Amino acid sequence: MNFPSKLVERAVEQVSRLPSIGPKSALRIVMQLLKADPSQTDELAEALRDLRHNIQYCQKCHAISDGPVCNTCLDVRREQSVICVVEQTRDVLAIENTNQYKGLYHVLGGVISPIEGIGPSDLYIASLLSRIAQEEVKEVILALSTTMEGDTTAFYLAKKIREQGVKVSTIARGIPMGGELEYADELTLGRSIMTRRELDS
Amino acid sequence: MNFPSKLVERAVEQVSRLPSIGPKSALRIVMQLLKADPSQTDELAEALRDLRHNIQYCQKCHAISDGPVCNTCLDVRREQSVICVVEQTRDVLAIENTNQYKGLYHVLGGVISPIEGIGPSDLYIASLLSRIAQEEVKEVILALSTTMEGDTTAFYLAKKIREQGVKVSTIARGIPMGGELEYADELTLGRSIMTRRELDS
Repeated sequence: MNFPSKLVERAVEQVSRLPSIGPKSALRIVMQLLKADPSQTDELAEALRDLRHNIQYCQKCHAISDGPVCNTCLDVRREQSVICVVEQTRDVLAIENTNQYKGLYHVLGGVISPIEGIGPSDLYIASLLSRIAQEEVKEVILALSTTMEGDTTAFYLAKKIREQGVKVSTIARGIPMGGELEYADELTLGRSIMTRRELDS
Repeated sequence: MNFPSKLVERAVEQVSRLPSIGPKSALRIVMQLLKADPSQTDELAEALRDLRHNIQYCQKCHAISDGPVCNTCLDVRREQSVICVVEQTRDVLAIENTNQYKGLYHVLGGVISPIEGIGPSDLYIASLLSRIAQEEVKEVILALSTTMEGDTTAFYLAKKIREQGVKVSTIARGIPMGGELEYADELTLGRSIMTRRELDS
């Protein structure tokens, strides 16, 4: 593309490095910022810098936090005996938005992936096991991706956690709500038949 | 949405003010920045600030420019007797990318819109007319939106430009290339019949 200005070109280049923003959207964003009040650009730039340099992670569950320990971990009204293990903070947000879970969390920081060279020691697994040893944990719920790597990680964790005599469960996998059987992939459909539940009478 | 941190909330809020980015995409962008090297965020913030505060507009055609006069206006190889009138710099880029036009440009900065309170004096119309009076202009091509406001502006400009004895043309409107008649709106189809051209033999 021919840019009318090096400043525009550089801004478009930087914006289009963001996920799911192509060069056309980036140009639209840049042009929109040029039309709007300069304070909008300043506030955006400041918010991003501030975020990147001042972000903290909870010492207990490793989720993104405003202080050394996050609000969820500090909340005494939450069930202290259940820990839900997830890959990243975004998953905590997703589960919180369902309003179906009132226990604690533990963010692994990823999943075991031999191909990418990520082993158990690269994840927050040791701190999870020591939380289980020190706190009164009765159940650990694994809420990991339903991928090969997610399953490997779940298998690894389940073994370690059961050694400490704690119950391990995994979130249900199956046909999504509102989903039509016709469009479900064979793996999901097969698994949902194997793990069928008796209907409440 | 429940945010794990005020820093994340503020960043998501600012990012989702950008065009065509909703709160979910904004969160994805923010999380991606947190994963990437801090230098990426710094470069992005710097590029946006620099763009917003140091951008210049060409004194002649009012397009975005790196200097007082833009490269297109400075390029003596371009046809100096034709001016293509557009609404915004983005339209200049779009036409440049076609490689079909070698004349000069003039950016109006918008279109006449009584509803939004934009009159001829709010646009770069006076400077267009003085360019036509001072330079050796033979033809002015109007490349404005095919909306009510665009048509009003074209009508207004055509009258003023013809008073100076200069030819006025407008870009062709019709069925887009590769477009199927079935899916064309009635207005476009009707107009394309009215403005039909004899086929080259």
